[in-house]
Amino acid sequence: MRTLIKRALTSESAQESITIKGWVRTRRDSKAFSFLEMNDGSCLANIQCIADAGIPGYDDVAKMTTGAAVGITGKLIESPGKGQKWEIQATALELIGESPEDYPLQKKGHTPEFMRSISHLRPRANLYGAVFRMRSRMSQAVNRFFDERDFTYVHTPIITASDCEGAGEMFRVTTQDPASDKPQKPENDFFKKSTYLTVSGQLEGEAYATALSNIYTFGPTFRAENSNTTRHACEFWMIEPEMAFCDLEGDMDLAEEFVKYLVQDALDNNEGDLEIFNKFVDKGLIERLKHVAKKPFQRVTYTEAVEILQNSGQTFEYPVEWGINLQSEHERYLTEEHFNCPTTVYNYPKSVKPFYMRTNDDGKTVTAMDLLVPGIGEIVGGAQREERMDVLQANMKEHNLSEEDYWWYMDLRKYGTCPHAGFGMGFERMLMFVTGMKNIRDVIPFARTPGSCEF
Amino acid sequence: MRTLIKRALTSESAQESITIKGWVRTRRDSKAFSFLEMNDGSCLANIQCIADAGIPGYDDVAKMTTGAAVGITGKLIESPGKGQKWEIQATALELIGESPEDYPLQKKGHTPEFMRSISHLRPRANLYGAVFRMRSRMSQAVNRFFDERDFTYVHTPIITASDCEGAGEMFRVTTQDPASDKPQKPENDFFKKSTYLTVSGQLEGEAYATALSNIYTFGPTFRAENSNTTRHACEFWMIEPEMAFCDLEGDMDLAEEFVKYLVQDALDNNEGDLEIFNKFVDKGLIERLKHVAKKPFQRVTYTEAVEILQNSGQTFEYPVEWGINLQSEHERYLTEEHFNCPTTVYNYPKSVKPFYMRTNDDGKTVTAMDLLVPGIGEIVGGAQREERMDVLQANMKEHNLSEEDYWWYMDLRKYGTCPHAGFGMGFERMLMFVTGMKNIRDVIPFARTPGSCEF
Repeated sequence: MRTLIKRALTSESAQESITIKGWVRTRRDSKAFSFLEMNDGSCLANIQCIADAGIPGYDDVAKMTTGAAVGITGKLIESPGKGQKWEIQATALELIGESPEDYPLQKKGHTPEFMRSISHLRPRANLYGAVFRMRSRMSQAVNRFFDERDFTYVHTPIITASDCEGAGEMFRVTTQDPASDKPQKPENDFFKKSTYLTVSGQLEGEAYATALSNIYTFGPTFRAENSNTTRHACEFWMIEPEMAFCDLEGDMDLAEEFVKYLVQDALDNNEGDLEIFNKFVDKGLIERLKHVAKKPFQRVTYTEAVEILQNSGQTFEYPVEWGINLQSEHERYLTEEHFNCPTTVYNYPKSVKPFYMRTNDDGKTVTAMDLLVPGIGEIVGGAQREERMDVLQANMKEHNLSEEDYWWYMDLRKYGTCPHAGFGMGFERMLMFVTGMKNIRDVIPFARTPGSCEF
Repeated sequence: MRTLIKRALTSESAQESITIKGWVRTRRDSKAFSFLEMNDGSCLANIQCIADAGIPGYDDVAKMTTGAAVGITGKLIESPGKGQKWEIQATALELIGESPEDYPLQKKGHTPEFMRSISHLRPRANLYGAVFRMRSRMSQAVNRFFDERDFTYVHTPIITASDCEGAGEMFRVTTQDPASDKPQKPENDFFKKSTYLTVSGQLEGEAYATALSNIYTFGPTFRAENSNTTRHACEFWMIEPEMAFCDLEGDMDLAEEFVKYLVQDALDNNEGDLEIFNKFVDKGLIERLKHVAKKPFQRVTYTEAVEILQNSGQTFEYPVEWGINLQSEHERYLTEEHFNCPTTVYNYPKSVKPFYMRTNDDGKTVTAMDLLVPGIGEIVGGAQREERMDVLQANMKEHNLSEEDYWWYMDLRKYGTCPHAGFGMGFERMLMFVTGMKNIRDVIPFARTPGSCEF
């Protein structure tokens, strides 16, 4: 039986015989023995193994170069070295798979761009291994958060014929070949109509919330937008809770609690991975995360936010006046300069928001909210939805949407309608916030961006 | 503050004041009071509420018809009725959203076909509410199973330029319009090449397993196959674990443990939902699940399975001889008639399996395995992968695959290669097995099948 290095390193006692299997990180030889630093990706730390010359398998030791797969059996003993509790005194070595000299991860200090070009190998590097273990832990934390609060996980569809209006450009899904020299009709396509990759599961999520009360989605979403920034990918994971009998305040409460929960979970359960980000990516990271987990978030209305920005004395590229959509520079000023903590802005102008948000009594704002965090900007966007059929119909008319296309969405208002609210969180943006990683391409195993769909 | 009905019904004590919000299932009036059966989708059971005439909001009681959204405040008291511990003695009613007479779920006994045509409303029906709560619980159990065993959750890409050879027909993803009257070149498409929806995350999963040791994927996968059966959907969720330093036996062990775990979890944590399946869908369900959770599974080689089938005295539509791919009728005979329990068949003929499976020493079989369950057939398919570069190259040649297309997959064998194995489980098939539901369309919130992409 093989023991994961993570388990060996946290063993409660010494062990007479243990077998680990993994990949060589470094090896140092002397005449009488060799030191092998072994890693199997189960945790950041290596385990040190001492192999005396002459033990079974030692003949192959020269081939146990960086990246080679090796099995080591031996005694788990207390390490005399600093910084680690256990090491292995090997009794047998097994060379499993060699690693030739051109192994790209032999040397350190590669650029992120180079690492993206070897996305199939980069999880073997310390930093990226840590990123993707954090990604896994945060996924578990997302599901745990909602499970603990009686939310039902709903898998909303990926292929869709409707669009969540205003969310973004869509990819087409088809079995027809655009390279064909004859125009092909949608009614002859696989689904007998034009279909797309979803930009949001919200509308379907509303159907389930108005049946099961508290639901959430957690799955991939897509944008066919030609924007090459550090924060945009064409394929990313999104979390979208939706709650029946819930208003904007309850929605903001949940969003803030959720962000705090994920940050606290990362602080509590990271098995040393957070250290590498704090050391090599962002020196203030752990301090900032602790601050966010502890300090109450700020809340301001859009109208108040506009006043703050206008009185800030700052010069913005996009001038600030009531009615504009807040730009990244404005959001960052609010959360990084003015409040210096995560900030929720709510009650946005109706004219800049989609048809499904609830109109406030003032007639000119809607119950939208964005949660902004330092360094990233918008990490959550949500709203209380318009539950009043007549107001929804009027909004759809203003947005030139046909009631026919949304017949089933209208039904949710026709039969037992109720106030309900929800939000979307970009999973990768949250992961960037918690790891300090600066480019979304580096927190997605195989990123899809305009012109790039490798592996 | 609103209390979920699930929480009210499991309260430890009576409560002076409680507010529930949900939808009316039935209402009965007498002169002096009304009974309201309320459901909010948090559990199968309704809570009974007694509202005396004259309490605040009672004037609207006639409008509180089936499907109407209603809020009820009152005392949580011990119920004198059988079968429920608590009921609510209302002190105030609030009509939140009416439900007109044409509400489709007023009457019971609708066909599954009709219910599919109102997929946006069917989670409000008892049976479908139970299905989708089970779906959520099973999702949590999937993640918990792997988390407890130190597996890292990896989000493999949905949009892909490669195909997991042999897995099935693919949908194209494009921003080009096939209805255009000019042929359009792949190099002008969004990703500058032809791209598709993934049929499996296995190859990318292998890259992560050979870095992080034990990984799994859990996400949507796609098949553009024109097969209209009760077991096939174009969009479904799949779970794909992959383990470094693992052979076929370890792979079969994990698959069997996983199936048992999910069945046991459904038996232990279903909050009454399993009863409705046992009563209305499949009377032997709970008995069968208990049997599966307890009894050891059977394992036979493909060669043994062929002998069993040939000696069975059965007439099969597809005659049995060594070398054929087992058909559904064969699989069902093995698991339902011969063994009468879940059965793993392994070491299949090389000629019927994909290039990446490991060739056995006999040269004619590969380390493939399928786990079959009664009533469903194949629920898991997996293999130990070919880790030897030269054998893999020979296999690719036989399958007419270009090494260039798979350069990164070959790299996993070039640098520190190791034995590794994994499998795929169709999540919906497992859910059908556990709920007894007979059609995959009825366990997916909004199913996508040939010619059908509604909602």
